[in-house]
Amino acid sequence: MKLWGGRFEKGPAEQFERFSRSLHFDGRLFFADIEGSRAWARALERVGIFTGDETGRVSAALESLAEEARREPAFFDAADEDVHTLVIRQLAERAGTGVADKLHTGRSRNEQVSLDMRIWLKGEIRAIDEAAVRLMGALLQQAERAPEVVLPGYTHLRRAQPVLWAHYLLAYFEMLTRDRARFARCYEAADQMPLGSGALAGSGLPIDREALARDLGFAAITRNSLDAASDRDFLLEFLFAASCAFLHLSRLAEDWILYSSEEFGFLELGDEVTSGSSLMPQKKNPDSLELIRGKTGRVLGHLVGLATVMKGLPLSYNRDMQEDKEPVFDAADQLRGALDMAALVAATATPRPEAMKQAAAGGWSCATDLAEYLALHGVSFRQAHETVGRIVRAGLAEGRAPEEWTLEQLRAFSPAFETDALPLMRDAQGIRRRELPGGTGPNAVAAALHEARERLGKVSGARC
Amino acid sequence: MKLWGGRFEKGPAEQFERFSRSLHFDGRLFFADIEGSRAWARALERVGIFTGDETGRVSAALESLAEEARREPAFFDAADEDVHTLVIRQLAERAGTGVADKLHTGRSRNEQVSLDMRIWLKGEIRAIDEAAVRLMGALLQQAERAPEVVLPGYTHLRRAQPVLWAHYLLAYFEMLTRDRARFARCYEAADQMPLGSGALAGSGLPIDREALARDLGFAAITRNSLDAASDRDFLLEFLFAASCAFLHLSRLAEDWILYSSEEFGFLELGDEVTSGSSLMPQKKNPDSLELIRGKTGRVLGHLVGLATVMKGLPLSYNRDMQEDKEPVFDAADQLRGALDMAALVAATATPRPEAMKQAAAGGWSCATDLAEYLALHGVSFRQAHETVGRIVRAGLAEGRAPEEWTLEQLRAFSPAFETDALPLMRDAQGIRRRELPGGTGPNAVAAALHEARERLGKVSGARC
Amino acid sequence: MKLWGGRFEKGPAEQFERFSRSLHFDGRLFFADIEGSRAWARALERVGIFTGDETGRVSAALESLAEEARREPAFFDAADEDVHTLVIRQLAERAGTGVADKLHTGRSRNEQVSLDMRIWLKGEIRAIDEAAVRLMGALLQQAERAPEVVLPGYTHLRRAQPVLWAHYLLAYFEMLTRDRARFARCYEAADQMPLGSGALAGSGLPIDREALARDLGFAAITRNSLDAASDRDFLLEFLFAASCAFLHLSRLAEDWILYSSEEFGFLELGDEVTSGSSLMPQKKNPDSLELIRGKTGRVLGHLVGLATVMKGLPLSYNRDMQEDKEPVFDAADQLRGALDMAALVAATATPRPEAMKQAAAGGWSCATDLAEYLALHGVSFRQAHETVGRIVRAGLAEGRAPEEWTLEQLRAFSPAFETDALPLMRDAQGIRRRELPGGTGPNAVAAALHEARERLGKVSGARC
Amino acid sequence: MKLWGGRFEKGPAEQFERFSRSLHFDGRLFFADIEGSRAWARALERVGIFTGDETGRVSAALESLAEEARREPAFFDAADEDVHTLVIRQLAERAGTGVADKLHTGRSRNEQVSLDMRIWLKGEIRAIDEAAVRLMGALLQQAERAPEVVLPGYTHLRRAQPVLWAHYLLAYFEMLTRDRARFARCYEAADQMPLGSGALAGSGLPIDREALARDLGFAAITRNSLDAASDRDFLLEFLFAASCAFLHLSRLAEDWILYSSEEFGFLELGDEVTSGSSLMPQKKNPDSLELIRGKTGRVLGHLVGLATVMKGLPLSYNRDMQEDKEPVFDAADQLRGALDMAALVAATATPRPEAMKQAAAGGWSCATDLAEYLALHGVSFRQAHETVGRIVRAGLAEGRAPEEWTLEQLRAFSPAFETDALPLMRDAQGIRRRELPGGTGPNAVAAALHEARERLGKVSGARC
Repeated sequence: MKLWGGRFEKGPAEQFERFSRSLHFDGRLFFADIEGSRAWARALERVGIFTGDETGRVSAALESLAEEARREPAFFDAADEDVHTLVIRQLAERAGTGVADKLHTGRSRNEQVSLDMRIWLKGEIRAIDEAAVRLMGALLQQAERAPEVVLPGYTHLRRAQPVLWAHYLLAYFEMLTRDRARFARCYEAADQMPLGSGALAGSGLPIDREALARDLGFAAITRNSLDAASDRDFLLEFLFAASCAFLHLSRLAEDWILYSSEEFGFLELGDEVTSGSSLMPQKKNPDSLELIRGKTGRVLGHLVGLATVMKGLPLSYNRDMQEDKEPVFDAADQLRGALDMAALVAATATPRPEAMKQAAAGGWSCATDLAEYLALHGVSFRQAHETVGRIVRAGLAEGRAPEEWTLEQLRAFSPAFETDALPLMRDAQGIRRRELPGGTGPNAVAAALHEARERLGKVSGARC
Repeated sequence: MKLWGGRFEKGPAEQFERFSRSLHFDGRLFFADIEGSRAWARALERVGIFTGDETGRVSAALESLAEEARREPAFFDAADEDVHTLVIRQLAERAGTGVADKLHTGRSRNEQVSLDMRIWLKGEIRAIDEAAVRLMGALLQQAERAPEVVLPGYTHLRRAQPVLWAHYLLAYFEMLTRDRARFARCYEAADQMPLGSGALAGSGLPIDREALARDLGFAAITRNSLDAASDRDFLLEFLFAASCAFLHLSRLAEDWILYSSEEFGFLELGDEVTSGSSLMPQKKNPDSLELIRGKTGRVLGHLVGLATVMKGLPLSYNRDMQEDKEPVFDAADQLRGALDMAALVAATATPRPEAMKQAAAGGWSCATDLAEYLALHGVSFRQAHETVGRIVRAGLAEGRAPEEWTLEQLRAFSPAFETDALPLMRDAQGIRRRELPGGTGPNAVAAALHEARERLGKVSGARC
Repeated sequence: MKLWGGRFEKGPAEQFERFSRSLHFDGRLFFADIEGSRAWARALERVGIFTGDETGRVSAALESLAEEARREPAFFDAADEDVHTLVIRQLAERAGTGVADKLHTGRSRNEQVSLDMRIWLKGEIRAIDEAAVRLMGALLQQAERAPEVVLPGYTHLRRAQPVLWAHYLLAYFEMLTRDRARFARCYEAADQMPLGSGALAGSGLPIDREALARDLGFAAITRNSLDAASDRDFLLEFLFAASCAFLHLSRLAEDWILYSSEEFGFLELGDEVTSGSSLMPQKKNPDSLELIRGKTGRVLGHLVGLATVMKGLPLSYNRDMQEDKEPVFDAADQLRGALDMAALVAATATPRPEAMKQAAAGGWSCATDLAEYLALHGVSFRQAHETVGRIVRAGLAEGRAPEEWTLEQLRAFSPAFETDALPLMRDAQGIRRRELPGGTGPNAVAAALHEARERLGKVSGARC
Repeated sequence: MKLWGGRFEKGPAEQFERFSRSLHFDGRLFFADIEGSRAWARALERVGIFTGDETGRVSAALESLAEEARREPAFFDAADEDVHTLVIRQLAERAGTGVADKLHTGRSRNEQVSLDMRIWLKGEIRAIDEAAVRLMGALLQQAERAPEVVLPGYTHLRRAQPVLWAHYLLAYFEMLTRDRARFARCYEAADQMPLGSGALAGSGLPIDREALARDLGFAAITRNSLDAASDRDFLLEFLFAASCAFLHLSRLAEDWILYSSEEFGFLELGDEVTSGSSLMPQKKNPDSLELIRGKTGRVLGHLVGLATVMKGLPLSYNRDMQEDKEPVFDAADQLRGALDMAALVAATATPRPEAMKQAAAGGWSCATDLAEYLALHGVSFRQAHETVGRIVRAGLAEGRAPEEWTLEQLRAFSPAFETDALPLMRDAQGIRRRELPGGTGPNAVAAALHEARERLGKVSGARC
């Protein structure tokens, strides 16, 4: 069965049918297509194409189709060109050719596939949001469990200043919060109902599009039929949002691969999320994190792919755009998988506070505290920075760690040092000086944790 | 002059300095850096580092610097490492080492460069928004000037159904509307004030960050110091928004290159925006549009570039991130140039209504009207589609154009045709049947035009 | 069954196993893995790990495995972690645990997967080369069938100068020739045997690597074990070669979509490779070409994806690199499909010589001939160009086509024109003036066609 | 001055000229353009357009232009549209309008820019090859200086097996060897002479293209004029080769950033190539390596950019292709800079053999040696792997390092252990067992070092 053909003398070559068919991937839109088709039947009834009885039969048959498809995966092993053709053919077999032949009145596959993708994407974004919330919850739990643990904060992968482990974890909470907002906006972009646009010029039937949008749970209707047939912005936005989320996950993965290495020793990953080697018996490899990091490339590739597809296409629909589906489906799968995987890694990781603390004390990461101390005691910051730089150089040359310095030794470099400078040189005491909002001071972090927990409880900013 | 050094025995190699210096591109942040530094001086005064008098001297000196830089482009031909060092050095020369040495108290270049980029980007987005509005205005003018002109709408680059030229232009208006919204959201992402984050751990001074945000005209403060040092999401969003805008422009370019070709003949481009050939005397080439289309690749490349830079970086700041600037600066320049160029092309293009109309009548683009006619007269759509397919095949085989058909000839294919079917076959009359919202019917388009004009008058949705 | 585990207290979580398993895609390497494993057994025999009898049993069991897998697709519906584990488990079931437990001696999955990918890729490149040759043959046939047909050559999508249809087709022949050379070099890159590299440090057994390479049909051995475990250059090269080939196909697709449009009318595509519309009965859409063009983005995306995966990975193997397979497999499938599709499109397309000729005569594409005529008659080229430019302007203004001009009218612009200038203005006569190698003159093209046919007959430049 | 115009009524808008001009970047092709123009003058003389005297005047004037440009950078601050126009205008000013107006006979800017890029690129590839050789030399020197130093080889960033520092360095030598080969092939792709192709159809003059190729030092001529005008494969190949080289450099950068961190401590970077912090006085940051790693994204972005530009362009030349230059120029600059930077980093880095050795002994990286020991003593590898896995687990649980184990303790796990197993557990003795080609055994590495030094001495494989 084909939805076209009268104009052709010969049918398509089998090779071409194989090359162009999409059922093996767009079957995923089946339930969205059913939902859209049922609503379209109701819309056709409102303009007199269907009787109430016919609408009822169509609707019941489509519902029974959906049930069968839910039960029976082999349902999708069919020879149809695409999911829309599958649905119409099955409908004809169940409810008769009469109604099936009428269902496509005033509707084109161009708008139908746009509708289906939008319905599907809205559902997918809801699921992604829930997965993001689970990961954020796992990070918060780690933070709440160890509110006083200190580790070195890094810049340039060099120990910079001590920070609270909870503060570190909250940095990722912020990134994921932005990701959720990006997906919420993408949801809004998807939440425009295209039916009634026809193939490109608007339907020839006086469809009540606003009513149809309400019926299908959409917030608005698309505004221009040519644009509706051409637009894939909402999918590009999704791929971009997924890429950003993966960039954040890739940084978490990199950090934790480092932190769980023999050299850092800050974190023990759970046996549940690590692998061994077929050759080297001692290995315990952070494969879960490596895969998360690696999949970042894949999803960025999908974004590039779809953007390149769209570049330079004339209006309105072109078949190139069929290439939108597989990357979007895969990006959604990969992201959900990676968020869940990251949540399990976070839930099963064990921090090693002693190793963190020791590292935080090392590397002269108290130097900024000393410089700021001098600056607050009348030394210009530039001079203070220079002075402490020389102290560090001396300490390294003489092998004298910060906690071993005496006041006299300090004062040899600057008379502005007093006894209250010494605590800054041990046990990451300087952390307590950073209590401004967003800082790593214990009170600031406690407040941030409390607020994060509250934000997480609330529904996402978007309607999704 | 360097902002660091006490800890080192040897200075950097000249080759390294050349490789790592950024003044030749980050000089562009100069005015933002001045603005941020003046506000920082006021913040330092509030915590007692500066006296009121010192703040005044710093502020005046910075202001005079800015004036000189505005007057004298050679101002930026300096040997400093980066724009921040340039400002401090110049400040020292004007206001004395005393205050210059204090200005950097409690502040790091990590947060400073984030602030500068945010200030700069907010300004740039405002300018882009204005350029987009100008292009949208030019498209609306074309539409309003010729509200009844008809051309063929295309799918698969085959004549599909006639549409109004104004309707076609409004499709691009919609795309640009989405672009503006994307930039507005990017503006919000940039509108978070990072100062007070220190290098990564939060400043050691009790800076009132909310006051500083108000002082600098920011909507909010960043929430986590580690994240503030690491985050480049707002730049990725900008590059993505620019890529999307370019994808839309590339499609307009493609369409208009086609429409102005000898083969289509729908549009005459202005001599002002076309070029000749050094070899072929007859050529009038649409270079302006080709360049717009070509620059799409460049900006997408910038997005890929920055995303790849960020992939897998550990927290927090890494010097790799210096590579964020050139692509963002270039994307902004290219986009502003392309929007302005497109506006000039739109303003100077002359439609050829006769050629458009003739093409709209050709290619049996009335076929859908005929099929829908049958569907509205009791024939199932599937049968109607099949019947009209055969009519088209016969017409092509016999060389009989739609307007040459008689009612008898039509009725030989289906008795459901009546005399009111014939007008659908000439002069794109079917267009009048598509009056639902978003359709190409004359009333629907008039309403859409009116609404577009109103929307354009309003300020953008965002605070920008 | 797992190939590791003694060091772990807990097994992997089911969620992690799902996230990390690869059998559903690396099953594709099964036959390569069998081939490699049989050769490895022989190598183990040479160093005394296996007896001759054991090698025989292993080899026979592996062969029977391969036979079953060929017969029974469900063979791959297994729960194993990856294809290597599947093979070992099946081997144990058939040949006993004794030999299966020994087969992995001195070998790691890191080198094994590299070997398998190399064997697989070499076969795939051979198949791609054959598909490219088929397409080139179809293009040559089109050219040979119509050696005198003329169409306008375009620059900037404006008619530039007439060229022979055969010359036009040979341009694509050249592009595909370069593609073949690129794949041949990629074959050489793949043709390095990695076994013996161990996991990263070299095998602990004194394997004769050169003998193993000969046994497996490889040209050379890899030179450094750490590099062998880390290197994915050969896959990046493949993705790049595939991207280039797709860029060429995308240009052919664009050209032919244009040429077969109602506006150009140069080419009629076969019904076999075109589609209709579910809504618009008259449509005959070039979907095959649009899909080819669209898939360009997908494959470029894969290249970006893998490059991003590799960026910044420390030596040597990291699990991120598992993400190399799916993009490479898909790129190979898409390219083979697209080459075959393009060959069918080329074989079934019918040129419309009259329309081509008429267009070639239009658009003043003879202007360059006129200018060069003047230049050969003593006028400086710059003046000649200017003069002909004014002739074109006058012709367009007065609506006088080139073939309507008289000698007097020409001479009013330049006295250097003689009667032999007039033929240049009709029937693309100027084409005969371009007989230098690479030019579009009939003799030059005939020679090029002949040479192309000869080149196509020969084997590809590479060993593949 | 313009090289076209007769056909136009109005000149180009100033805004369009600004948007489309390229002199600010294609000025870089000036010397190539001079070289090509001089050869073109000689070719024109051979076909009788120029007299010998005219050729001499043109040639002398072009030579004097080149000299002035070399002396005076402001030479390029001109208002010309592009470099070709600049050359012709300057030529007219020096040698008179007469010859300048004739020089462009039978030549188009389409082929000219292709020629210029090819000449420029060949020179650039030579320079890149030299820079690669310098870096390889610096790596070899490090290796030769410390042939016995051992460090842990890593997989999954976990200590895997000990390897020689020289072996590790040679892995990068292999990658750079492949990079050189890629550039050599890119050189061959560039080494095709396009002049005589005209704008697209072949020149109208009977130019001896082979002679011209010899005159300009090209290996061959391009084979099809349409292809010559359209082809940018050689630039895509260059961007791909540069991206691959950067991927390798990014891995070196990542490794050395890790190795020079406080946690690893394997390497001390020179003060010459590290930076401090404006806030944190103790910092010594590996900025040189971070910038190298970061620039990888930029260059990959350029590849994506140009590929996207080319996608879907109809034949032959389109102005979009002007966007080929800036990415290629920038990629060349960045790569040369990065190779030189990496060479300086390599030359100034100091390994810390004690720390490397200690780490190599840690992490049970001898486990594979033990397993292979058992396998060579009659235990199946699978059992051996399992047994050693349990030994590792016991060792970690009891805190007993490998070198602390007694034979009795080992034999409690397997009676196959003899006294000769104990040395494998200390001082990375197992390394001596890996002497097969490509392995990390001292003799194998000494041979590889020797061979590398020889290979480096030879000229690159390509003609470049």
